[in-house]
Amino acid sequence: MNLSGVYPALTTPFDRDGGVSLSDLKHNIRLYNATDLAGYVVLGSTGESVLLSHAEKESILELVRDAAGTEKRLIAGTGAESTGETIEQTKRAAEIGYHVALVKTPHYYKPSYKPHVLARHFRSVADASPIPVLLYSVPIFTGIALESAEVIALSEHPNVVGIKDSSGDVRRVAETIAGTPADFQVLVGAASTILSCFVLGAAGAILALASALPEKCVAVHQLFRQGQLEKARELQLKLVQASKVIVSEMGIAGLKCAMDLREYRGGAPRLPLLPLQEEQKKQLSGLLASLEPATARA
Amino acid sequence: MNLSGVYPALTTPFDRDGGVSLSDLKHNIRLYNATDLAGYVVLGSTGESVLLSHAEKESILELVRDAAGTEKRLIAGTGAESTGETIEQTKRAAEIGYHVALVKTPHYYKPSYKPHVLARHFRSVADASPIPVLLYSVPIFTGIALESAEVIALSEHPNVVGIKDSSGDVRRVAETIAGTPADFQVLVGAASTILSCFVLGAAGAILALASALPEKCVAVHQLFRQGQLEKARELQLKLVQASKVIVSEMGIAGLKCAMDLREYRGGAPRLPLLPLQEEQKKQLSGLLASLEPATARA
Amino acid sequence: MNLSGVYPALTTPFDRDGGVSLSDLKHNIRLYNATDLAGYVVLGSTGESVLLSHAEKESILELVRDAAGTEKRLIAGTGAESTGETIEQTKRAAEIGYHVALVKTPHYYKPSYKPHVLARHFRSVADASPIPVLLYSVPIFTGIALESAEVIALSEHPNVVGIKDSSGDVRRVAETIAGTPADFQVLVGAASTILSCFVLGAAGAILALASALPEKCVAVHQLFRQGQLEKARELQLKLVQASKVIVSEMGIAGLKCAMDLREYRGGAPRLPLLPLQEEQKKQLSGLLASLEPATARA
Amino acid sequence: MNLSGVYPALTTPFDRDGGVSLSDLKHNIRLYNATDLAGYVVLGSTGESVLLSHAEKESILELVRDAAGTEKRLIAGTGAESTGETIEQTKRAAEIGYHVALVKTPHYYKPSYKPHVLARHFRSVADASPIPVLLYSVPIFTGIALESAEVIALSEHPNVVGIKDSSGDVRRVAETIAGTPADFQVLVGAASTILSCFVLGAAGAILALASALPEKCVAVHQLFRQGQLEKARELQLKLVQASKVIVSEMGIAGLKCAMDLREYRGGAPRLPLLPLQEEQKKQLSGLLASLEPATARA
Repeated sequence: MNLSGVYPALTTPFDRDGGVSLSDLKHNIRLYNATDLAGYVVLGSTGESVLLSHAEKESILELVRDAAGTEKRLIAGTGAESTGETIEQTKRAAEIGYHVALVKTPHYYKPSYKPHVLARHFRSVADASPIPVLLYSVPIFTGIALESAEVIALSEHPNVVGIKDSSGDVRRVAETIAGTPADFQVLVGAASTILSCFVLGAAGAILALASALPEKCVAVHQLFRQGQLEKARELQLKLVQASKVIVSEMGIAGLKCAMDLREYRGGAPRLPLLPLQEEQKKQLSGLLASLEPATARA
Repeated sequence: MNLSGVYPALTTPFDRDGGVSLSDLKHNIRLYNATDLAGYVVLGSTGESVLLSHAEKESILELVRDAAGTEKRLIAGTGAESTGETIEQTKRAAEIGYHVALVKTPHYYKPSYKPHVLARHFRSVADASPIPVLLYSVPIFTGIALESAEVIALSEHPNVVGIKDSSGDVRRVAETIAGTPADFQVLVGAASTILSCFVLGAAGAILALASALPEKCVAVHQLFRQGQLEKARELQLKLVQASKVIVSEMGIAGLKCAMDLREYRGGAPRLPLLPLQEEQKKQLSGLLASLEPATARA
Repeated sequence: MNLSGVYPALTTPFDRDGGVSLSDLKHNIRLYNATDLAGYVVLGSTGESVLLSHAEKESILELVRDAAGTEKRLIAGTGAESTGETIEQTKRAAEIGYHVALVKTPHYYKPSYKPHVLARHFRSVADASPIPVLLYSVPIFTGIALESAEVIALSEHPNVVGIKDSSGDVRRVAETIAGTPADFQVLVGAASTILSCFVLGAAGAILALASALPEKCVAVHQLFRQGQLEKARELQLKLVQASKVIVSEMGIAGLKCAMDLREYRGGAPRLPLLPLQEEQKKQLSGLLASLEPATARA
Repeated sequence: MNLSGVYPALTTPFDRDGGVSLSDLKHNIRLYNATDLAGYVVLGSTGESVLLSHAEKESILELVRDAAGTEKRLIAGTGAESTGETIEQTKRAAEIGYHVALVKTPHYYKPSYKPHVLARHFRSVADASPIPVLLYSVPIFTGIALESAEVIALSEHPNVVGIKDSSGDVRRVAETIAGTPADFQVLVGAASTILSCFVLGAAGAILALASALPEKCVAVHQLFRQGQLEKARELQLKLVQASKVIVSEMGIAGLKCAMDLREYRGGAPRLPLLPLQEEQKKQLSGLLASLEPATARA
């Protein structure tokens, strides 16, 4: 299962009544289908999955499966706090037709989730899963990072095919690549560091920013693969500022607003998340405009 | 609504098949009914609530309501990640008969949960809740602490009656008490600091440790109220070590094992949490034995 | 060596040319001599000791020795980064006539300063010191906290008589008191938590705030010793806000300004520390005024 | 002033009596002179500068100046806690003949060292310095990181020519490069991330590891410059493990031992730092052996 390439962490659009808008989601997927995105990541952190009901999650998984281009890889976020529910959701995603399960660390009982506890959790899920498992470390939200030693140990499991490392810690990515087999795939989750990780051997990236700027995120990967380092560098440096403002500072509300300012359907996030204020929207609009020459060049 | 006194954060017993054991829970409540505990906190962090299904939560809420002594205050943990689901669970707890809703901070999207976002969330919940709301700050699990300035602002809401502060930060408790009205009730959630907080004016405590050692936790409060400071101090210093080992180091598995070593039914936690190892059980047994003379003296 | 009571962490006044003003320091000591302060702590963090030359430190140590009332305990900060220089400064302080050496943790090479390294450092200093040693843990500045287990181990050394714990972590203070012999003296360094620590058995306090508000800091200790808990509590809650604004938020510049607003000589701190801005001075002035009724009552 | 290339952060050898061994230092410099190292960094964190006396520092500065090959750039660590002493040491380094001053953040009074305070400190030093200033951010030791916004603002000062960023945070490096003029030079201080930073445009690196493995560290830079990305990547991944064990885990003692195991003179660190234990030496020896094939290939 070759996962190389760039994937958007899909957002979940809501309609005016606060329900999930499958039609807006379908609109976005159709546009994404026309790009070189390698596939889609559904129900990740960016998809506000922790704010969704079970029924909503099922309807989203089905919609994306139906709307996705046939060559796109389908990755479902299936990590829950309990091992049992994680296995259940993973099996369900496989039934629906997803190719890979993205399993985040459980995180609520942080002081108890020592490395051997997490290892046992991931092994149980990988044992039970009908589809390959991608580990998911996202300490900015969970407060727990999978350290390279833990990932290296888990990479020996035949059904653990890689990791999405959203820590933004390139040293950790380097240690992971240095210590895992060549077919263990590292996908990075921080847009500011993708070129730095590609040069180390990372297979690809799963990016919130790719929901708003899919072509630019894909272009960094393609330019790097083509050996056009200087162009890749210029584009990477532009994305650094975009990622900082849109994703790190403004969060999901910022990403959705950036989508609205382009041709996608972002909309408002679900409470307690709040939409951007007018002043922030203007800042965002100016930022997106400043990126345009780069598109032309890239 | 006077909440003063000591409350156990109830554990959730599981049977051999991994399901919730309502009969074991009933056993524990009956024993607790004979103590001076002021009431019960159901579905808190200690109750493994994030590992339970909706149906399991309902059955637990109903069982404790039925089994509790009539004079006991009933507090239900109702905080979910989304504002909407928190309101729904709060209304359901009120319907079932709970007196107070304990609402923890949402926490997954930490970088977005700035003070004004959290304030709006808690105000929405307090507006919609049929029963008084107790704020719940438990940074060791959530990675988010409610700062005293935020609590002071929220204390103006007529339906926010107090806070359970489990940060263990006595300075923050002091700032909160200094800045809130006299009828705003601070319940502390760290057994090592209860006497230090009672002397500042804290109304009481909600303690995991009180599920295993209810009499001792209650005794610190009673001795303090009776002006027996030196006896209170001696008992508090004993509980420091117990709290450190049982709760901080061994977590829910440790607490449940301590219950088993006394007359309560603890059992194993749910995966990914793991039960204690044999060596830890021995350490725990020795620790409990060392506490006994204190009981006699207190 | 009984160290119970309240000590100010002395500030270092500078003259207009930026040199140490021994005359201003003498002025302050004379005023302090008339209070119930138990003694003086010279060349602590509050004394800007890391910004002073060797010659300046010597002149300050001598001035305070000469100006102090005969019943006052004299404590000198002698901790340097290297073990050798710490021993040298400790011996020099003893020669000058200081009763106790306050030895902070070395801290620059944090990742290497594991517990056994710090233990060996403190043991070497205590072995070589002609005067009793007080451990000094001040993580807000050093980034290193002495944990209770380390303090308990060091308390066995006959020349280690206690600790100044400025972490503000009451749980750690409780663990330390619970685990050390009755004659091991814990002095706390965070004004917001002194009453909470006295009730656990702390011997006293070393406070920056006591340089500006010596009577109020002393009064909390005296009221507690006299069993006037409610009055002690009221005063403690007032000091919480003062400590937060003056010490935690405004730092040494705030403390020195508060001294200027009373009858002491504070002056400006040394660069890179900057003096308060006008707006901050007004805030400080209002805060001090709000404390006055408490003085009358206490 | 072109600073591109790789520099070792020099260690300070001590003789059996604990004094600085200038002859051992000279030995090392002679060997380094034969490599493609771009110059030397003297009195940095790796040089145990915080454990040295003024006289020792002067003698080291003079020795390295005399022993260095004429084409080597000379960089002196001159940052002290006070602005005044930093300026004094910077002027002295210039007099002795150093080309660049490496000025670390003051750090003791962390809560007071807000961005505008640090900015004023660095501007004062840059104004007064006869030689160009290199900012130095090393949060693992100081607890303070210079954020990219602060560096970008300081990059406008004509006498601030670059930064040594030892945070290991590639995102911060990317933001800094994206926001500063093309002639502002970023030297990275974490061996695990140099290739990742070179691809973003970093000018070079200042590395503790280069005191033990100068050829390998230089080779990563040279291979990258020659467009041999795959060879650079292989060598980088080897250095990741070496850097982790030798520098991050074993610290200065580990680095010095690695020097001893090659042809350099490392020796023991100064107290409170402790030398490696036998078991660690064996681990280190095995690690160094495992690197050898890479040398041949590179």
